[in-house]
Amino acid sequence: MFEKVLKDPVHDEILFDDPLLWKLVNTSAVQRLRRIRQLGTSYMTYHGAEHTRFAHSLGAYETMRRVLIHLERECGWPNEHRHRQLALAAALLHDLGHGPFSHTFESILGVHHELWTHRIMLEDEQLRTVLDSVDSMFAKDLVSILKKDGRFPAIEALVSSQLDVDRMDYMLRDALSTGVSYGQFELARLIRSLTVRDDHVYVKRQSLHTVEQYLLARYFMYVQVYLHPVTVGSDVLVENILRRARDLVSEGISIEIPGALLAVLNGKDVSVDTYLQLDESVLLYAFHQWSRSDDTILADLADRFLTRRLFAPIVRDEPSVSEWASLRTMAKAMGFPPDYYVTERVSTIPGYEVLGQGLTLLDDFDGYSDLSQVSKLIRTLVPSQEHRLFLPKEMLESDNESLSKRVHSIVFLRP
Amino acid sequence: MFEKVLKDPVHDEILFDDPLLWKLVNTSAVQRLRRIRQLGTSYMTYHGAEHTRFAHSLGAYETMRRVLIHLERECGWPNEHRHRQLALAAALLHDLGHGPFSHTFESILGVHHELWTHRIMLEDEQLRTVLDSVDSMFAKDLVSILKKDGRFPAIEALVSSQLDVDRMDYMLRDALSTGVSYGQFELARLIRSLTVRDDHVYVKRQSLHTVEQYLLARYFMYVQVYLHPVTVGSDVLVENILRRARDLVSEGISIEIPGALLAVLNGKDVSVDTYLQLDESVLLYAFHQWSRSDDTILADLADRFLTRRLFAPIVRDEPSVSEWASLRTMAKAMGFPPDYYVTERVSTIPGYEVLGQGLTLLDDFDGYSDLSQVSKLIRTLVPSQEHRLFLPKEMLESDNESLSKRVHSIVFLRP
Amino acid sequence: MFEKVLKDPVHDEILFDDPLLWKLVNTSAVQRLRRIRQLGTSYMTYHGAEHTRFAHSLGAYETMRRVLIHLERECGWPNEHRHRQLALAAALLHDLGHGPFSHTFESILGVHHELWTHRIMLEDEQLRTVLDSVDSMFAKDLVSILKKDGRFPAIEALVSSQLDVDRMDYMLRDALSTGVSYGQFELARLIRSLTVRDDHVYVKRQSLHTVEQYLLARYFMYVQVYLHPVTVGSDVLVENILRRARDLVSEGISIEIPGALLAVLNGKDVSVDTYLQLDESVLLYAFHQWSRSDDTILADLADRFLTRRLFAPIVRDEPSVSEWASLRTMAKAMGFPPDYYVTERVSTIPGYEVLGQGLTLLDDFDGYSDLSQVSKLIRTLVPSQEHRLFLPKEMLESDNESLSKRVHSIVFLRP
Amino acid sequence: MFEKVLKDPVHDEILFDDPLLWKLVNTSAVQRLRRIRQLGTSYMTYHGAEHTRFAHSLGAYETMRRVLIHLERECGWPNEHRHRQLALAAALLHDLGHGPFSHTFESILGVHHELWTHRIMLEDEQLRTVLDSVDSMFAKDLVSILKKDGRFPAIEALVSSQLDVDRMDYMLRDALSTGVSYGQFELARLIRSLTVRDDHVYVKRQSLHTVEQYLLARYFMYVQVYLHPVTVGSDVLVENILRRARDLVSEGISIEIPGALLAVLNGKDVSVDTYLQLDESVLLYAFHQWSRSDDTILADLADRFLTRRLFAPIVRDEPSVSEWASLRTMAKAMGFPPDYYVTERVSTIPGYEVLGQGLTLLDDFDGYSDLSQVSKLIRTLVPSQEHRLFLPKEMLESDNESLSKRVHSIVFLRP
Repeated sequence: MFEKVLKDPVHDEILFDDPLLWKLVNTSAVQRLRRIRQLGTSYMTYHGAEHTRFAHSLGAYETMRRVLIHLERECGWPNEHRHRQLALAAALLHDLGHGPFSHTFESILGVHHELWTHRIMLEDEQLRTVLDSVDSMFAKDLVSILKKDGRFPAIEALVSSQLDVDRMDYMLRDALSTGVSYGQFELARLIRSLTVRDDHVYVKRQSLHTVEQYLLARYFMYVQVYLHPVTVGSDVLVENILRRARDLVSEGISIEIPGALLAVLNGKDVSVDTYLQLDESVLLYAFHQWSRSDDTILADLADRFLTRRLFAPIVRDEPSVSEWASLRTMAKAMGFPPDYYVTERVSTIPGYEVLGQGLTLLDDFDGYSDLSQVSKLIRTLVPSQEHRLFLPKEMLESDNESLSKRVHSIVFLRP
Repeated sequence: MFEKVLKDPVHDEILFDDPLLWKLVNTSAVQRLRRIRQLGTSYMTYHGAEHTRFAHSLGAYETMRRVLIHLERECGWPNEHRHRQLALAAALLHDLGHGPFSHTFESILGVHHELWTHRIMLEDEQLRTVLDSVDSMFAKDLVSILKKDGRFPAIEALVSSQLDVDRMDYMLRDALSTGVSYGQFELARLIRSLTVRDDHVYVKRQSLHTVEQYLLARYFMYVQVYLHPVTVGSDVLVENILRRARDLVSEGISIEIPGALLAVLNGKDVSVDTYLQLDESVLLYAFHQWSRSDDTILADLADRFLTRRLFAPIVRDEPSVSEWASLRTMAKAMGFPPDYYVTERVSTIPGYEVLGQGLTLLDDFDGYSDLSQVSKLIRTLVPSQEHRLFLPKEMLESDNESLSKRVHSIVFLRP
Repeated sequence: MFEKVLKDPVHDEILFDDPLLWKLVNTSAVQRLRRIRQLGTSYMTYHGAEHTRFAHSLGAYETMRRVLIHLERECGWPNEHRHRQLALAAALLHDLGHGPFSHTFESILGVHHELWTHRIMLEDEQLRTVLDSVDSMFAKDLVSILKKDGRFPAIEALVSSQLDVDRMDYMLRDALSTGVSYGQFELARLIRSLTVRDDHVYVKRQSLHTVEQYLLARYFMYVQVYLHPVTVGSDVLVENILRRARDLVSEGISIEIPGALLAVLNGKDVSVDTYLQLDESVLLYAFHQWSRSDDTILADLADRFLTRRLFAPIVRDEPSVSEWASLRTMAKAMGFPPDYYVTERVSTIPGYEVLGQGLTLLDDFDGYSDLSQVSKLIRTLVPSQEHRLFLPKEMLESDNESLSKRVHSIVFLRP
Repeated sequence: MFEKVLKDPVHDEILFDDPLLWKLVNTSAVQRLRRIRQLGTSYMTYHGAEHTRFAHSLGAYETMRRVLIHLERECGWPNEHRHRQLALAAALLHDLGHGPFSHTFESILGVHHELWTHRIMLEDEQLRTVLDSVDSMFAKDLVSILKKDGRFPAIEALVSSQLDVDRMDYMLRDALSTGVSYGQFELARLIRSLTVRDDHVYVKRQSLHTVEQYLLARYFMYVQVYLHPVTVGSDVLVENILRRARDLVSEGISIEIPGALLAVLNGKDVSVDTYLQLDESVLLYAFHQWSRSDDTILADLADRFLTRRLFAPIVRDEPSVSEWASLRTMAKAMGFPPDYYVTERVSTIPGYEVLGQGLTLLDDFDGYSDLSQVSKLIRTLVPSQEHRLFLPKEMLESDNESLSKRVHSIVFLRP
């Protein structure tokens, strides 16, 4: 009997009973996720948020394992070993392509982590060897699932949809690590609410409120944790650091920089091997180097991150063109080049999406309905946006009081 | 009213109501602790153990804050603002001097982190400015407390003894992050069990079992978490990597290495500024560099750490001289230079210490007794040792079966 | 220093530091609440729901204690010892008047438990002696607070409003005992969101989402726990038992019955002393007696409760007059006198109420707004109703299949 | 697919997947356990301890279910449906025979609850019908298991030994309800530590510390909860009430008393039907009746229990004959007939028992050892005794100070 048990703060135990999955855990592509935090810069706001994408990947795997046990009892699905392995492997590997401070990194580099996930699955030699040990189509089928090609609809939905093992794990894990209760929901009952018919996933009508609780927990995590102004400000700072570094590089100014990071900043033809060398230790080390750079902007920005002197977030309407111009002028006057020190950011709180992705309830009489038809609460969950400005605290609290006053008068809607 | 509240997974909320303490949190010396894990390499065993010394320092501070509230109600201690600030600052700053993978680092460098804590308190300019804002003796008094000079006996005991805010926080935090229940105890009741007389801390006799539970929780954390063979094996690996790097450096062989790390490996006259540049991102980055080094030993060891191919731990008696010699010979024959690949390690599970450090119970009739006089359970808590050998898994599972067999016959006591 | 500490599964510790409050706890009127469950018959659905109104009263007291500590720090309120005692005593004593299976009892007797609370406060000799030890107006002021006369607006709101210590405690306690996560919310942060101005309670604007979470938790507790069809069916059964007993008594038919219960069923001029003799042990004992009664209806109904053969709940629209008539005819034909065996019940899920009771948010610029103006989620929380029919399972699963089929065809909207 | 899921505060969900077990839950013999608290009078000390033997029985069943899933994976045991049903039914039904305030009741009546469990299993018609539906030997085999006849050694050990599903559930449940952490241990890991060979249960050697934690948790629950002096004092009070009632009955003095209780107090030839009518509502109702009795002793004692005016516990050595005589004389002088008001009680904290019941560790080399050979901690767990005196608080705090002083001088070892 093969059995590996990992202790986990969310699920108590994570059980591996298939050697294939355990071999996947021990690839370097998966182990690298130990060096990438699940919540990016959130640890600057919630000091507990140090949990990694590795832990989350294990948790998504374990959640899938429990979902499959339920579905096998409930409706005999999946009825086949390879299918089971596909579902488990997809859950374990879905986050492979994340880079350091992931979403920030993507926005600078203009490449989605999903594409890297697919490339790593297909091109990383060690990983590929393990996957090919099942059969030569296994890796491609996994990519197909992550791409949601429609060939494995139930697995696709369980791996990525509005009710997937990814979210089920991360909400509980993020809530535990940050210490908030906002992300909690009834996991076992939610799993039990699922059913599969004709290879599609449905939610039982009688579990309506369990799903409502889960979707509202997600809403609360967005407004209280994921889009916390201080976190978004930390993201902005990382982004501005990377942008400054890239600008210097592209201007031909030499800076100390880890090789893999340079390759990525230069932006073309990065190999999977190079990409996999990137993690948050590399980025933080670059910040260390840069904090002693000759470029005062780069040095100052990097030092701000390392010593947590973050930008001040100001929640307000979109600034007008003239407000924006004034603010940039003020920043320049106070010694803060506005391209790197004054940033606007619009954050979107996602809603419940009906089109093409709705959750379908199945009642006792074989009736189908979209969750939003039945739940008034869920219908309020429409996407909404928060406009925020970020700028150095020094601009608001300058020794030169009259300057600060003018900044205040521009950015704050009320005095 | 000054009030800063941080959300915490252990204590729910951490409250700052004194601007001095909040300023200390925001020094770069304290913020640096965000980049040093509380449990060193334990995350290689327990994937949740990513929590930082920063989080722990906040938790030790919060525990002290609650202890002081209790003691003020209980016996009017401390009755003075500066005294209170000393206690809180000592709790917050007690871990300042930790380096990356702390205990391993110390054993390589031969310098205790405590000494660095003292130096940072006295020499770091930014921190010193905040401390001096109280008065010019404040920093020195803090060092005196950490040194346990005996000038502030109650604070010294609360900061560092067998029943201190350091352990109270870390046991709960380590238990939560790893997901084990072993470290749990009745925090609020334990705090309530404390009393102060003539500036010394005592435990109320009626709280005997509460203290027993706390000390046994510590025992369980040692045997199940802190000295877990896989974790000790990870420490050994880090140590061997650093030793190899130092050997190369001292032999004059040039390797890529972050400057601050080089300074420390060279070992003399490291400044506080240089030391503070060291954290786990720097060390991990060095491992990245070294994994591509021309020195095959360094490259292999570093790669093992990054991809979690750890040494196999073997729990057994101390090997005899001849066993030891045979094992080294075998290692060499199999291509593993024994100085870096075969390591013995003795781990000590600490016991309850009576001499000079015992916990004194105070009964309702003003009678004093040492905890160990009253508790049979506590008397069993004497230090004990675990001998372990660490070597590459390949030596035990070689393709050359006869070689592996011989290794087995040397290291395992029974076939 | 006066200090009594009780261990509590919700708040960890409940602290008494004022001898007055401790004396109140030890009156027999408060101790009686140990024999009345907080959630009535919910334990028939959730086997953990055995927690008592005594535990909840302690919890409401403790919550008030923490609210007052916050408000004293936040805005210096309350600034006076008697005021503090009023708030704490009101929280502790607010549930004094509950009878066994409280809401059921009320609906049979037509007397609100609030009136009994007031009477007990004023008329119970032992309790009155303790209250009068403050001053002769103390008891009357407490009643005034519970009646919400408007003389102590802040205390009144903290004791009874949409955001009061009563709900804060019971939601957490009910969630813990039943084992559901639906009722959880951020207690410490919610307390911190409160502020008092001109003796009125406000919620800080920045705590919007914390209050949303709390109000949604309440919604989920209603739909998942408080109005669970099986629980409502248990209530209906208790009510029908009591109604049958009262009918027999009023028809002059003698049954075994505890004296205090007989007095209450007879309905007039019940003294406080008599009322206080009633608790759930008395009611359950009456059910024991009645289960052996000569009256077959009473005997059968009581036995159903004791052995948990509850009515089947059917969730459906309001039945038409003819459906209703058919159903009663069927019941009679099957041997179940419909007055006691077929019951309709409309349950109301409460919403957020604006008129006269809204929660007022206070922003940083002294702006006021009702919570519902700001939160779309909260605006969906309007009262809604669930119609349900309750009848013996035997009617649906009769040995006479054709009879059962006809019952099915009447009560189920779809075949 | 048969599936019933109950929500549980300890195990989250309790799953029934075999209709037989669900039918057993719904017998009146099992439902009666809803009216008997798991911890007897502990709720007088820990107000949360209202959980019932019904909840515990479900939890013991669920724990057994998980143990069997593990053992089936681990070593293919049990390999047969009837065997599985025996194990589950034995876990569910093991507490059937408990009476109200169980241990107190037993000591008054001189009949062990185990005997009643056996009788109910064999004689209760409804229960027997369900059990006989498996086969005519099923009920007898269950009794054989509970008697530990040795015919089903593994099941017997899992149901009743030093490491059984009974204790696993009750320790966690008692800890949760009372709000203490003392009873917590690693349930999933403990289950995983079990293995079966030749129909005997063993504990894997590598799980040593997990078992240590579990046994120490039990020790802490005894000293902190089960033998809490206030709880023992409440037991003494119940016992003295029942003794007084029995004495009156045996002297032919008529008192109001529920019929089933009278039958049991009279003591002979009580039928199973009569016994099953007894529960805590009946006993509490009797206390209500007795609190208004003409017998002033009975009335006073019963009223003390209902209003929680418990005896004061005094922890001290065994009193000498002369101390004892003086104390009884004093009690009489102060109006408290000593037979009912002054009680000595010796409570035994159980230890780890080796003889005939030891837990056997099984190492990787098929070596067996008793747990106590390997663990120093466990060897300290030898039975120990606590002597306590119980008497009315009024004797210690009399208005007549000189009387109180004399009582003090007798009972307290130090002034």
